[in-house]
Amino acid sequence: MIKEQEEKRADSSETRDGTVKLRNPHIELFDQDILYHIALGSKSHDLVEMFGDVKFVCMGGTPKRMETSAHYIMEEIGYKIPTGTTLMDISQHSYRYSIYKVGPVISVSHGIGSSSIGVLLHEMIKLMYHAKAEDPIFFRIGTCGGLGLEPGTVVISDDAMNGLGNHYYSLPILGKVLKRPVKLDKKLVRELKALVAQDDPYDTTTGTTMCAEDFYEGQGRIDGAFCDYTEVEKQEYLKSLVTQGVKNIEMESVPFSALTHQAGIKAAIVCVTILNRLKGDQIAVPKEVITQYQQRLQILATRYIKKYLQTKDSSCLLKGSFAVESP
Amino acid sequence: MIKEQEEKRADSSETRDGTVKLRNPHIELFDQDILYHIALGSKSHDLVEMFGDVKFVCMGGTPKRMETSAHYIMEEIGYKIPTGTTLMDISQHSYRYSIYKVGPVISVSHGIGSSSIGVLLHEMIKLMYHAKAEDPIFFRIGTCGGLGLEPGTVVISDDAMNGLGNHYYSLPILGKVLKRPVKLDKKLVRELKALVAQDDPYDTTTGTTMCAEDFYEGQGRIDGAFCDYTEVEKQEYLKSLVTQGVKNIEMESVPFSALTHQAGIKAAIVCVTILNRLKGDQIAVPKEVITQYQQRLQILATRYIKKYLQTKDSSCLLKGSFAVESP
Repeated sequence: MIKEQEEKRADSSETRDGTVKLRNPHIELFDQDILYHIALGSKSHDLVEMFGDVKFVCMGGTPKRMETSAHYIMEEIGYKIPTGTTLMDISQHSYRYSIYKVGPVISVSHGIGSSSIGVLLHEMIKLMYHAKAEDPIFFRIGTCGGLGLEPGTVVISDDAMNGLGNHYYSLPILGKVLKRPVKLDKKLVRELKALVAQDDPYDTTTGTTMCAEDFYEGQGRIDGAFCDYTEVEKQEYLKSLVTQGVKNIEMESVPFSALTHQAGIKAAIVCVTILNRLKGDQIAVPKEVITQYQQRLQILATRYIKKYLQTKDSSCLLKGSFAVESP
Repeated sequence: MIKEQEEKRADSSETRDGTVKLRNPHIELFDQDILYHIALGSKSHDLVEMFGDVKFVCMGGTPKRMETSAHYIMEEIGYKIPTGTTLMDISQHSYRYSIYKVGPVISVSHGIGSSSIGVLLHEMIKLMYHAKAEDPIFFRIGTCGGLGLEPGTVVISDDAMNGLGNHYYSLPILGKVLKRPVKLDKKLVRELKALVAQDDPYDTTTGTTMCAEDFYEGQGRIDGAFCDYTEVEKQEYLKSLVTQGVKNIEMESVPFSALTHQAGIKAAIVCVTILNRLKGDQIAVPKEVITQYQQRLQILATRYIKKYLQTKDSSCLLKGSFAVESP
């Protein structure tokens, strides 16, 4: 039942104009394309007009956090909206995901787990295609469990693996498993790392992120509704992850890094640890502290966005790249 | 890497008092149990007082639908709340799932996909355990794609399988795959079927539900961001599903039916088809029509709930069962 397939990243040859190419020959034959879960469509909306200027798509778990993030980015990049207006959830009628847009930056919620972010990725990639957005960069900013890290540590993923230690995204398609390689942009990781400030009152590190299919047993927690292993077995497992270079555990990194790579979209994952899993499972840290931790992600992502937008060299802009120095 | 394990359903021997038993020896040793994603805890809240009376947990995809559902149930079962009060989302501070409670009925959103409903199932099962709720019945009510059925058809699942045709829920735990059998209560299926009214202006059927890990390629759609197969290959695949008895495709049935079975909780899945997948992939049906379709699920679930609550025979009530006749 296993069909191995290493697919090539979308061609970045000289004919490439920066817009997102779809690896699906059917879409351009459609009269319209309904992006059902984000309540947008290629016929019902002028997607080029609405989203043609997008340079960044920031994804995170909850609608609330992504709304807060949008407001923070607006403040930071000095984006003005007319008096008497406010940011609104563009996809509010979908009741599935929430999308906020602040000039060239989209802030969107992805829910919990691979399937939830997978559906959103399909629709955001198609949205970028229909909008003819040039070289959009995708960020996932999220919370995670850390391994041997002080809570509040920021982890920039330089690799991702699933719960079996495999560095690919497996998906049953037409009854056979397709495996897509996980790949994150090394240069983007370095650029983000270079934006860490000397005086940031917390650590920022890089490493492999494990993507679990479940929050409890899938992450070796002993506090789920079911648990057939001991604390000792759990500790052995978590330590084996550490020896594999795993710094943190969350639930979306594998589809995120596989599907953006597959689409030829530059992407990064930046998470903040809300507990040290070597010391426990329950999340007892107060909401305010978690909110404070999450701000660290917004800060790093926004440093990158500001730097990018301030870069005047249009050739660099088109390549979605710039020289980095510490802030 | 595969560890096959057929686990037994929680013991229903004569010592059973109807409360939910956890198959996790660790929980009772905890000083407190924080149900992080629903913003409740065994120490911060009096869960027995709050949820001890729960008889039904109805799960569905979106917060909006589950809020509407709660109001419908309130009206139908004649549940009164004090003047000047309104239903509120009990888990609003989690920003993850939304929980509404109408007397003995919980209405809760589960998001999209296996991981999302999986996290919620762990916490709802633990909630029922802490609350000492007796014999709660879990329903999943959702939308789906139908196979050869008129859009708007209600499907009561009598079995579930994953995208590889397997009737178990696979989850990597401590680096090994654990397989849990999918099982739905046949009697509950019959009882629900018996509540279909002769004059319901739509069909209600039973059959196997396929649980996909993705909305696009995972369900054989040709309208995702990626597609490496043809319309002909897709049709062959969908027809092979029909020959296997599959009536509909959604994204949560496998973990839902495996984990409720594992916990010894009686459960049913009732979905409404919003399109016939043999005829297309895009969901072009207007929102109002989908809302109308979704009401069919609320109607069926509520018929069951009303019948259950009206049953005066307390021994039947405790067993969570009653004689069925058409409404």
